[in-house]
Amino acid sequence: MMPERFALGVQYDGRPWQGWQSQPGGQTVQDVLEGALGQFTGAPVRVTAAGRTDAGVHALGQVVHFDSAAQRPAHAWVRGLNSLLPGTIAVHWASPVPDEFHARFSAEARTYQYVLYVSPLRSPHLQGHAGWFYLPLDLKAMQRAADAILGEHDFSALRSAQCQARSPIKTLHTVTIKAVGDFVLFTLRADAFLHHMVRNLVGCLIAVGRGQYAPEWVRAVVDGRDRAKAAPTFMAAGLYLARVEYPSRFTLPAPAALGTVFPGL
Amino acid sequence: MMPERFALGVQYDGRPWQGWQSQPGGQTVQDVLEGALGQFTGAPVRVTAAGRTDAGVHALGQVVHFDSAAQRPAHAWVRGLNSLLPGTIAVHWASPVPDEFHARFSAEARTYQYVLYVSPLRSPHLQGHAGWFYLPLDLKAMQRAADAILGEHDFSALRSAQCQARSPIKTLHTVTIKAVGDFVLFTLRADAFLHHMVRNLVGCLIAVGRGQYAPEWVRAVVDGRDRAKAAPTFMAAGLYLARVEYPSRFTLPAPAALGTVFPGL
Repeated sequence: MMPERFALGVQYDGRPWQGWQSQPGGQTVQDVLEGALGQFTGAPVRVTAAGRTDAGVHALGQVVHFDSAAQRPAHAWVRGLNSLLPGTIAVHWASPVPDEFHARFSAEARTYQYVLYVSPLRSPHLQGHAGWFYLPLDLKAMQRAADAILGEHDFSALRSAQCQARSPIKTLHTVTIKAVGDFVLFTLRADAFLHHMVRNLVGCLIAVGRGQYAPEWVRAVVDGRDRAKAAPTFMAAGLYLARVEYPSRFTLPAPAALGTVFPGL
Repeated sequence: MMPERFALGVQYDGRPWQGWQSQPGGQTVQDVLEGALGQFTGAPVRVTAAGRTDAGVHALGQVVHFDSAAQRPAHAWVRGLNSLLPGTIAVHWASPVPDEFHARFSAEARTYQYVLYVSPLRSPHLQGHAGWFYLPLDLKAMQRAADAILGEHDFSALRSAQCQARSPIKTLHTVTIKAVGDFVLFTLRADAFLHHMVRNLVGCLIAVGRGQYAPEWVRAVVDGRDRAKAAPTFMAAGLYLARVEYPSRFTLPAPAALGTVFPGL
């Protein structure tokens, strides 16, 4: 059989894993998923993901592709792989794709969501599962700060030193910030994100929300392109890779919604 | 100083712990909390809890009491203990109480909540954090079944072999079952619960909800007082000790709400 290309929608709880990308220790989502695929197909399989999430970062809508000569109906991939995966990783859907499909390079937009619990006391139930901030936040000021950096910018100020992206110029399509009970939900959509960009931006927006800086400060930080001027990288705990968008001709299923984890969000 | 009696409201994620009650291995919430109290007060402290939750069971509103000669303002107990506790256990409030207060024997009512995720596919984000069932449920049938066992009954049919309660006769005040998105929330309030009673009842209600039995079956199971006739004990993952109620003269603070964990519930 000629190998064919498949795409998978993958969800994971980032807590037990050393991030997406394969490492010698093997405690990464990629290592575990490739192990399950190898067992299921009876041949070694290498996967390529849309986003290489960091240690502790979660995914609702990670997308990967791989090539395999195994012939299975779509639901058999889902059921078979889930029976081989640990409880903190699950395949949400499987779909055959044309050879030109590439999980990373075909992606046109990414959406990350950041779930922040705002309360004087930390919640033991949300440890590693949501971010936490202990002071009230001015959401209107934060939204104003976010709106001022929409569009195409050089986001070097929000980029980690380890970032491997070829260009720091990205287009931030939308940032919405909403409060639900004791939670604040950030939803950010861009063509692509630099390494640590979401966590750095959330850190800056919280600095504005708590009154440390005026809303205009975030735009000034971005324009200054100096990482040292931005807020510290906010904790990974609340970060979810929510959705990766591809050209409609690939007709891929929708990702799991955040409401399957946090029913009110 | 004469020792005085204090009460604490305690929250925990049950996943990493071998239940509430102290064990030689020390991996229990009681062991860890007593360790923190010993460090904080500089003297050994033994605590007594309202409910001895099983391994994997969570608490939003566990209440404990202990005696200590340490003099600290209430907020210092909360802050000091939380700085010594692991991220999966937290003290929500502290309050001085009269010597007659007993976390277990003064309690007049307990409320447990069970969070069930209903979806053909398991969610890796809810592993250990919510129960899961893969078939749609008829909530009206389940509510009818639950309403038929309200009031005082011999609940031997829903009691585990390990149960140490003196009497199997308990008064079930309310059972509410509501759907929120892909979740079903059970809220059960009684004077007290037998060991495994909530998980056994949730198992029975799910058997009704999926159409395996008519609603009347649950009342017949209770009346039959035969554990072998009830459904298997449902998984611990979704069970939260939500609230313990005491006579109003003790004026204890309210527990953490489930909405601080699941914002829509």
